[in-house]
Amino acid sequence: MSEKKYVYSFGGGEADGDTTLKNLLGGKGSNLAEMANIGVPVPAGFTITTEVCTYYYDHGKTYPPELDEQMKAGIKKIEKVMDARFGDAENPLLVSVRSGARVSMPGMMDTVLNLGLNDETVQGLIKKTNNPRFGYDSYRRFIQMYSNVVCGLDNEVMESELERMKEEKGVEVDTDLDENDLKKLVQKFKDIYKEKFGEPFPTDPWEQLKGSIGAVFGSWMNNRAMVYRRLHGIPHSWGTAVNVQAMVYGNMGESSATGVAFTRDPSTGEKKYYGEWLVNAQGEDVVAGIRTPHPLNDYTESKTQTGLSTLQVEMPEVFKELCDNFEKLEQHYKEMQDIEFTIQEGTLWLLQTRTGKRTAAAAVRIAVEMEKEELIDKKTAVLRVDPKQVDQLLHPMIDPKFKKEVVAKGLPASPGAAVGRVVFTAEEAVEMASKGEPVILTRIETSPEDIEGMHSAKGILTSRGGMTSHAAVVARGMGKCCIAGAGDVTINYKDEQFKIKGTDHVVKKGDFISLDGTTGELLLGKADTIEPELSGTFADLMVWADEFRNMGVRTNADTPDDAKKALEFGAEGIGLCRTEHMFFAEERILAVRQMIVSDTQEEREKALAKILPMQQEDFEGIFEAMAGYPVTIRLLDPPLHEFVPHEDKQIEDLARSLDMDFKELKSKIEGLSEMNPMLGHRGCRLGITYPEITRMQARAIMQAACTLAQKDIDVLPEIMVPLIGGVEEFNNQKKIIVEEAEEIMKEYGVNVKYMVGTMIEVPRAAITADRVAQSAEFFSFGTNDLTQMTMGFSRDDAGRFLPQYVERGFYPEDPFQSIDIEGVGEMVEIGLRRGRSTSEDLKVGICGEHGGDPKSVEFCHKIDMNYVSCSPFRVPIARLAAAQAAVKTLKKNRPHL
Amino acid sequence: MSEKKYVYSFGGGEADGDTTLKNLLGGKGSNLAEMANIGVPVPAGFTITTEVCTYYYDHGKTYPPELDEQMKAGIKKIEKVMDARFGDAENPLLVSVRSGARVSMPGMMDTVLNLGLNDETVQGLIKKTNNPRFGYDSYRRFIQMYSNVVCGLDNEVMESELERMKEEKGVEVDTDLDENDLKKLVQKFKDIYKEKFGEPFPTDPWEQLKGSIGAVFGSWMNNRAMVYRRLHGIPHSWGTAVNVQAMVYGNMGESSATGVAFTRDPSTGEKKYYGEWLVNAQGEDVVAGIRTPHPLNDYTESKTQTGLSTLQVEMPEVFKELCDNFEKLEQHYKEMQDIEFTIQEGTLWLLQTRTGKRTAAAAVRIAVEMEKEELIDKKTAVLRVDPKQVDQLLHPMIDPKFKKEVVAKGLPASPGAAVGRVVFTAEEAVEMASKGEPVILTRIETSPEDIEGMHSAKGILTSRGGMTSHAAVVARGMGKCCIAGAGDVTINYKDEQFKIKGTDHVVKKGDFISLDGTTGELLLGKADTIEPELSGTFADLMVWADEFRNMGVRTNADTPDDAKKALEFGAEGIGLCRTEHMFFAEERILAVRQMIVSDTQEEREKALAKILPMQQEDFEGIFEAMAGYPVTIRLLDPPLHEFVPHEDKQIEDLARSLDMDFKELKSKIEGLSEMNPMLGHRGCRLGITYPEITRMQARAIMQAACTLAQKDIDVLPEIMVPLIGGVEEFNNQKKIIVEEAEEIMKEYGVNVKYMVGTMIEVPRAAITADRVAQSAEFFSFGTNDLTQMTMGFSRDDAGRFLPQYVERGFYPEDPFQSIDIEGVGEMVEIGLRRGRSTSEDLKVGICGEHGGDPKSVEFCHKIDMNYVSCSPFRVPIARLAAAQAAVKTLKKNRPHL
Repeated sequence: MSEKKYVYSFGGGEADGDTTLKNLLGGKGSNLAEMANIGVPVPAGFTITTEVCTYYYDHGKTYPPELDEQMKAGIKKIEKVMDARFGDAENPLLVSVRSGARVSMPGMMDTVLNLGLNDETVQGLIKKTNNPRFGYDSYRRFIQMYSNVVCGLDNEVMESELERMKEEKGVEVDTDLDENDLKKLVQKFKDIYKEKFGEPFPTDPWEQLKGSIGAVFGSWMNNRAMVYRRLHGIPHSWGTAVNVQAMVYGNMGESSATGVAFTRDPSTGEKKYYGEWLVNAQGEDVVAGIRTPHPLNDYTESKTQTGLSTLQVEMPEVFKELCDNFEKLEQHYKEMQDIEFTIQEGTLWLLQTRTGKRTAAAAVRIAVEMEKEELIDKKTAVLRVDPKQVDQLLHPMIDPKFKKEVVAKGLPASPGAAVGRVVFTAEEAVEMASKGEPVILTRIETSPEDIEGMHSAKGILTSRGGMTSHAAVVARGMGKCCIAGAGDVTINYKDEQFKIKGTDHVVKKGDFISLDGTTGELLLGKADTIEPELSGTFADLMVWADEFRNMGVRTNADTPDDAKKALEFGAEGIGLCRTEHMFFAEERILAVRQMIVSDTQEEREKALAKILPMQQEDFEGIFEAMAGYPVTIRLLDPPLHEFVPHEDKQIEDLARSLDMDFKELKSKIEGLSEMNPMLGHRGCRLGITYPEITRMQARAIMQAACTLAQKDIDVLPEIMVPLIGGVEEFNNQKKIIVEEAEEIMKEYGVNVKYMVGTMIEVPRAAITADRVAQSAEFFSFGTNDLTQMTMGFSRDDAGRFLPQYVERGFYPEDPFQSIDIEGVGEMVEIGLRRGRSTSEDLKVGICGEHGGDPKSVEFCHKIDMNYVSCSPFRVPIARLAAAQAAVKTLKKNRPHL
Repeated sequence: MSEKKYVYSFGGGEADGDTTLKNLLGGKGSNLAEMANIGVPVPAGFTITTEVCTYYYDHGKTYPPELDEQMKAGIKKIEKVMDARFGDAENPLLVSVRSGARVSMPGMMDTVLNLGLNDETVQGLIKKTNNPRFGYDSYRRFIQMYSNVVCGLDNEVMESELERMKEEKGVEVDTDLDENDLKKLVQKFKDIYKEKFGEPFPTDPWEQLKGSIGAVFGSWMNNRAMVYRRLHGIPHSWGTAVNVQAMVYGNMGESSATGVAFTRDPSTGEKKYYGEWLVNAQGEDVVAGIRTPHPLNDYTESKTQTGLSTLQVEMPEVFKELCDNFEKLEQHYKEMQDIEFTIQEGTLWLLQTRTGKRTAAAAVRIAVEMEKEELIDKKTAVLRVDPKQVDQLLHPMIDPKFKKEVVAKGLPASPGAAVGRVVFTAEEAVEMASKGEPVILTRIETSPEDIEGMHSAKGILTSRGGMTSHAAVVARGMGKCCIAGAGDVTINYKDEQFKIKGTDHVVKKGDFISLDGTTGELLLGKADTIEPELSGTFADLMVWADEFRNMGVRTNADTPDDAKKALEFGAEGIGLCRTEHMFFAEERILAVRQMIVSDTQEEREKALAKILPMQQEDFEGIFEAMAGYPVTIRLLDPPLHEFVPHEDKQIEDLARSLDMDFKELKSKIEGLSEMNPMLGHRGCRLGITYPEITRMQARAIMQAACTLAQKDIDVLPEIMVPLIGGVEEFNNQKKIIVEEAEEIMKEYGVNVKYMVGTMIEVPRAAITADRVAQSAEFFSFGTNDLTQMTMGFSRDDAGRFLPQYVERGFYPEDPFQSIDIEGVGEMVEIGLRRGRSTSEDLKVGICGEHGGDPKSVEFCHKIDMNYVSCSPFRVPIARLAAAQAAVKTLKKNRPHL
């Protein structure tokens, strides 16, 4: 029997291991082996297996006896590939020592670089790089790192010496220290080491190496790493591997260089190499920005226009080798790669390769083109695009070439870009827009009364409110650019202007401004924008997504325009049509208000009779736009006080319009106020106390449906009762709806297939869903309110603590943006399961803001919802997310395929 | 084989059936048989079995052939016992025909009385009663009833004839019609009958009888009865029995009489017969109040002081027989009986016996004395007292002898009686009370700032707010009499007076008023009150209750006084001590406010340092009062804006006290306001954003505990974190608490057994309780908030629809008073089960208002809670309710014992 293998070498176009040995070699070690195996020139090295770690802890922190010999053989192989010698003063081989567990534990464990340096070998390094400052800096860093990582010296001890040196020299940054300073520092560090540990700093590279390996194994059990593993469920028994790898240097003269490159253009996705490089430089010089990096090739130069020389021209041979490696890596990893490379004295080394980050447009193009190149299949292509990124593609954006001058920042409440003239009231917005002027509605906060103005505006800017403020939510729903809560914008309604705190800028009504809703940036004047394109590769991708997706995607839309937009985006029906948004139109609000302040049912019915034909007309428009698709209409939901004015002047106006006494009207309006409007008299509670409202709405819906049905237009109304707490409330409302529906169908002499269902948004409704489902024909989870009630905070008030909660990790994300799976999600699942326990085929959807959030969509898929519904602009996102969920679940359900 | 028995006779000291034949004879029939069997003189009769009903519906509404003969035999037996003959003109036997199903279906089915009357027999009745008016009135009633019940004639038809007759005579009430009028009416009714049905009104008693029996069987399938059965889950197949029973009359001269009696005094429970009677009268005369009823016996006379003659004296023989029957019935039913009797020509008949209603005091005394008489066992005694009634015994009450003049009514928000001088502000209440004056705090509404005033007052009167308004909840907590929402009381703070709407009463500051919180009645001046007594039989009963009870009962108490009161009432610890109530004391509120308006942590800590010693002192007092018992202390819960003033004048005062700028302070206070304070920045959210508050409170608690522990006083603090939504928030707070606790115990050199647990009041906490229980050492369900969040309405706002919801049966009771078992209860059970799934022995309690509601207590017992906690005055109620739940469950769990 041969001796046990503890050391796996890699480099020189071959390797002892490969990615199948991940458990033994760790993530990093097996990847390096894989790269070496496919012929990528990685700096040579070896991996000490995780079994050594286990042995180490099982045997009182000692090593297997065979290890020493195997390591020596490993070093020999490195020396051969790298053509350098460990501890040699002329041509020293320097190495790095890094941990590498099965799964990545970023920042948890220790690393030692430039190992092998001592007073002699540093001279070799200096000679090779012709850079004494670099040599001594590398040396002092090595001593500092070693003392800290291997010997446990507080990093501050040596760091403060460095600081003292800078003070003495009167310089600010490390780079201002010269060769001699650093040489002195090396001596100082060695003195400190001797003083602290009673012996000189080890000069023997072998001693340095063993010490470092021990330190890495030791760091597996440090506190930080143990906590991390406990949090992430990683067993301590896995152990870590240790990677010892040759250091390479791009600063060894004019035939050395360093660079980064992408195998495809990360901005556009075009299949062209894109990258930057610097001759005689280290990797950090490329990113540090002191020297302007050169373009990698002609393509990069065509994009960046630097006028500087390319690697393609300067080192054509190496460039060709680099390109060959790009091909190899893409073919192997079947993904666009982001590569770090170093050229050391004419020899190319690839230090790292990883999946490259890219823009949304690039992500789509790369995924689709790779499928066409037969690199990946359609499912993989669909999984390759982050649905959240897709949002970028659906809105106009500030032209990346435009030079932005940002004067203030707010929350990126609704993405896109908008350019227009400032107005301060909804009325002005409507008026100016009607004249064809683009406007930006600028308000401290918005309220439901501003809806029409928001519709007319190109964008919305508020100085107060969060990501879930009225402005933010409504703007997202409209797919309209919005910056919310720009605290530095000080609005003065009286003078019709705003100032920017801390600046002299004064923006007057009529001035042009530009909003970047994707970043939250406010610009003065007119910015250049570019329009989105939904054709080409994006269209291909969406077709594939729809092939895999098995959950429906509907939209939340309140107008025929929204409905049409959503259809373009691929919506398969309306999941939420909010009837109250129709109430705010100028010619209607008076009748609505009259209804609200009525004293008797008779008066209310009179006012409702005025609203009926208008609502019917709305529904006709929406049904017609959505012909053939289901349309879920929610009955009146908000508390009545949202519809009436609250300022004396407006109340006076209303009193005049309604021919009422001001005082009486004011007292009525005050009587409507509530301590906790979220938990007040709204939703079906209104329909229960005022059945005539439900009756009017049911009538408007069914008259509209019957009118279209008479014209042979296919209508599928789904009437939805909001805010029920149990089946009793639902039944009360259903009875009214069915009575009206049956009567109207008889009147019109047509039959319309309608359904009556309910929102599930009160926890009690979810808890008692088995009974609710005895009577409700569909469920739609209203996860906005369900989140508020389940978690016990209102989104209006949560601003004081919720950001902290997310920051501290109490919740992984803002629960109003991505569903809180553990709490609210569980409540949804309880509701769904209990509902289906009574009614097996119950149609279940979601219509909260979460319907457009990819993670939430995946959750909905997992628990078997029939559809999600979201604002029109989020429909493509939801489609993609649903497709991904389907593909992933399929994989999960059939692990052997 | 003998023929099938369809008719079961009873009367004359014997009966064919008994209560074991309930399914066959129905409830009423089997009871009548039972009474006859034990020798009680019930008017004779027979029961036609439920099988006949089934036969009737199975055979096309026909009867078994044997029935006719058996009925004839039945009538014969009746004639014999009653010494009268069916259809006889001289001595007619009249009967009633009534339905009687297995279970009572009150008012659902039909009854015919005085059956057997016709033009001849009515003369016999007149002769016997010597009362022609009575004879004709009985006759016209019979025709009316028969026409309606048997023939389906709309009752209005004959009723309108009666109305017309009254109009003609110019009289208001039926009793003003004389013999001749009624005689005419009889004729009129007979004419109507003939006209409607084409044949004369049936004069043959047999025909009348068969018709009536058919009508009763027919009514089993009437719509009303079918709906009732569907609602109550009663199968249609059960059918009903029919009872035919002799009518008896107490108005047949001076040897006839009628009366009602209790076998024990229903007011006091004393083992004395108590009743009223009238000679030569019908049952309805006793209750109608036209003639003053006579006392049954000396005992009754001693209580009522009428000066009228007793049955004991007037008819000693019959009285003795009656008493014998009382004994028989009590021995048989083992319960105090409420008996209706009639003496017809010297012969005693018992018409009905049922369990007698009684006062709380009587209920307790009767239950305990019956146990001592060995009539019932202890378990039965414990079950005999309605815990809700016990409330009456724990508060002072208006002396029943006091002649109340009620000037207004409000909600009976907190029981008891209070007499005192009117004051309109909390400050005045404190001041006047400190001078020893009893005061009634009179406010439009109360707020937390009024707490001290409420404490000082004898009672609280508000003109606005419901059963769960601040005033009501706090008053109940304090066990203080309160009338809430007395809408007719118009308070004018400026003039320091209130008026009573619709009257001339003006009550000025300093005037005496009296409140009856049990009825909601407001009286002017000083009423006489009597104090409660908790000794004697009540004490016995509570000892027995505690023997059976296996759930703990704690109290919600914020002061040592409350704690002591609760201990007297039998509390076994504190389940909820609200630390914030301590913040309102005059000398503290300033420091609290200073803390709230602080800008920096440092400033806050400075203010908190002032509060620390005061809180510590509070806790010392409470721990000392509760020595040996656990004390659960909830950390700061309400939103901070509840602690600061909101009116300009008060803000000015505060600004002066804090040496702050008014405008700055006002803007800070405004900044604290929230859209939905219920769902806002409160509970542990405060402790998370301001950890220094939690730190101070933990310190105050543990310093208090350690101080007492040093004196060898047994302290068991349980520190409770409010309003968590998940384990992460809890852990954040627990860490702070444990750090402080460990440090303080080290400082003091003592060890205190403390626990750290949490309220479960946010639905998400219940849903994720398995994870919460990994870290929380106990759960206490805060069902007030849990109800609000689970049902989605705030108790402040629910007034607009909740009363309607309860009225319509959406919820069986106000869910803030009795836990909504289906929804909120289910949520509690989910939380408890999930918590115990992680931590099997997790201590679980409830501390919402529901902890003192008997139905809710029973629910808590069923789901295996460890304890309930309620306000001190509800502790005995909870103890009794818990005992009953234990006894009932035991019975339920072991059905064969």
